[in-house]
Amino acid sequence: MNAQSATVTVQVELGARSYPIHIGSGLLGDHALFAAAVGSGQPVLVTNDVVAPLYLETVLLACPAARDQVVVLPDGEAHKSLASFEHIVRFMLERRIERGAVLIALGGGVIGDLTGFAAACYQRGIDYVQVPTTLLAQVDSAVGGKTAVNHPLGKNMIGAFHQPRAVIADTATLSTLPRREFSAGLAEVIKYGLIRDGALLDWLESNLARLLAREPVALRHAIQRSCEHKAEVVAGDERESGARALLNLGHTFGHAIEAAQGYGRWLHGEAVAAGLCMAARMSAELGWLEPADVARVMQLVEQAGLPSAPPADIAVETYLELMGRDKKNCGGRIRLVLLEALGRACVTRDYPDAVLTRVIADAAAGWRRA
Amino acid sequence: MNAQSATVTVQVELGARSYPIHIGSGLLGDHALFAAAVGSGQPVLVTNDVVAPLYLETVLLACPAARDQVVVLPDGEAHKSLASFEHIVRFMLERRIERGAVLIALGGGVIGDLTGFAAACYQRGIDYVQVPTTLLAQVDSAVGGKTAVNHPLGKNMIGAFHQPRAVIADTATLSTLPRREFSAGLAEVIKYGLIRDGALLDWLESNLARLLAREPVALRHAIQRSCEHKAEVVAGDERESGARALLNLGHTFGHAIEAAQGYGRWLHGEAVAAGLCMAARMSAELGWLEPADVARVMQLVEQAGLPSAPPADIAVETYLELMGRDKKNCGGRIRLVLLEALGRACVTRDYPDAVLTRVIADAAAGWRRA
Repeated sequence: MNAQSATVTVQVELGARSYPIHIGSGLLGDHALFAAAVGSGQPVLVTNDVVAPLYLETVLLACPAARDQVVVLPDGEAHKSLASFEHIVRFMLERRIERGAVLIALGGGVIGDLTGFAAACYQRGIDYVQVPTTLLAQVDSAVGGKTAVNHPLGKNMIGAFHQPRAVIADTATLSTLPRREFSAGLAEVIKYGLIRDGALLDWLESNLARLLAREPVALRHAIQRSCEHKAEVVAGDERESGARALLNLGHTFGHAIEAAQGYGRWLHGEAVAAGLCMAARMSAELGWLEPADVARVMQLVEQAGLPSAPPADIAVETYLELMGRDKKNCGGRIRLVLLEALGRACVTRDYPDAVLTRVIADAAAGWRRA
Repeated sequence: MNAQSATVTVQVELGARSYPIHIGSGLLGDHALFAAAVGSGQPVLVTNDVVAPLYLETVLLACPAARDQVVVLPDGEAHKSLASFEHIVRFMLERRIERGAVLIALGGGVIGDLTGFAAACYQRGIDYVQVPTTLLAQVDSAVGGKTAVNHPLGKNMIGAFHQPRAVIADTATLSTLPRREFSAGLAEVIKYGLIRDGALLDWLESNLARLLAREPVALRHAIQRSCEHKAEVVAGDERESGARALLNLGHTFGHAIEAAQGYGRWLHGEAVAAGLCMAARMSAELGWLEPADVARVMQLVEQAGLPSAPPADIAVETYLELMGRDKKNCGGRIRLVLLEALGRACVTRDYPDAVLTRVIADAAAGWRRA
């Protein structure tokens, strides 16, 4: 097996709930891999109408028992809803799907989060396998057991912690991913570098062109390092009472951007990218990062094809209002994940409010005042 | 403190998720007990429009922080739905209730199961306290962490295992419980005796009149023994992979009776009572119980004010169809909990189908052919 075709496996260590993440090119057609991942239960596959024409048949050939048990939902964040959840549950109940069944989530983060939540709640919990087909899902959302649907009043407000049996990340599926979505996934890879891996940041700066060209070996490396980081953090803090919060670097700002615009106008990763730059800038304002560090973050984000500033039309008050609604707050004060250095993040509520509002205002002005 | 007013506490041992069940008369007004049970989180109370006029003010005096955070739902099993779940979630999101909040379920099994499920899923899981006001909830549904809502295609089909922080069972609330509902709760007490406590069966036969008169000391004993049994079983098998299944004695038949009639015509406990008699009779047909044992079960059920036979108008085929849909089945064959002796239950799929259909037919005929 040459470097091009090798599969790597990252293990998420969670005791009885441990599971493997398989990463490689062409895994969707791997019958043995699916047989091991799905086990003996009746598989029920959930996907969407964009992914299905591309990859459904390949997966059904690798996992023939799922052939007559396929739910195809419309594509898009709007369908990460309680209504879609109910649709999956109804499909399974109508077919008398029993507790021993295994859901397979074939798609991006929406399909993965939604299917995982359906698995968490169907008859009080059944198994599921994540088959992520976007970079964002492969490096982030398919790993770690966070499942959810959105509520009109807030994203991911209804959900559960429910770990998959296995994750199968086929890097070949990224070849059909639109450029914007691919870049959105890179935001999370950059995030891992910023939080806990300075070497990954260096590697990204040197290898961004290879990634943007979707070279399998580069993709596998970026996904492997990302999954290793996420697996380590999740193993240490499955239910996000501590260190797992660091994974939200850029996300408190990012969620506010998404919510203010209405979900779907910017991709999650695009909002996170701007949020990463805002967190870096805020860290510099607090004296933790050098201006050169911030410039480096913004350059990497921009070279990855991502926005380094949020849309201009969101008011400071709107940010504060929306960030105050974030799940991770306690006692009313907005908790932020910031950077002590490139490669080292921390959680803090200890900052002058004026600094936060100034950073938001500067960001909204496209950093022109910076 | 005299025997009349004493509170007993049964501990559910589940490691980091252990919790106390407090049982006694007048606990709804116990400020210190609520303070300890709720802790420092913002309490949000969920109840229904039958319980609220009776007990809400008492609880709000004991737990004043909940005063402006009360959800009152219509009474009834029809409201144990995804729609009610969404109503609770929306109420909390509109009020910006954070992850540190604590839901309080004040009511019977519907309110407890529904509120527990909302707690399981709100922002991926928050704490909750069970304050059961029916005998059924005090001896069964409020203990053990099974939460759920119904789906039009099946009862409890959407749910989660999510343990409460504490259970506060005030026996004084049973004084206002309608006779039918009180008897329905007794069905579960009888069940514990049948499954694993012959001495409890003896005690029930001797003390049924005291229970039906709602004597606090007798109630406390029946609830304490029931909770001790449930706590032991749950501690050994939290997610129902083994011994917890024994708690479903009478329930596979019972769920079929409820489903065939449309939920709400018979109370759950009434259907379970008939199911207990069917399980006893089937056990006798297999040679495990004596006819005298069956007669004893039926007599106790009837003296508790419960039906010993199901409605006459449900066909055998309907039972088989509905029992085949039960969550606890594997591989298509109906799993039954039966009795090896009074006080000892077992799970089996090993029985002649003809015996099952004969028992169902005899039961539907009101045991007149028995």
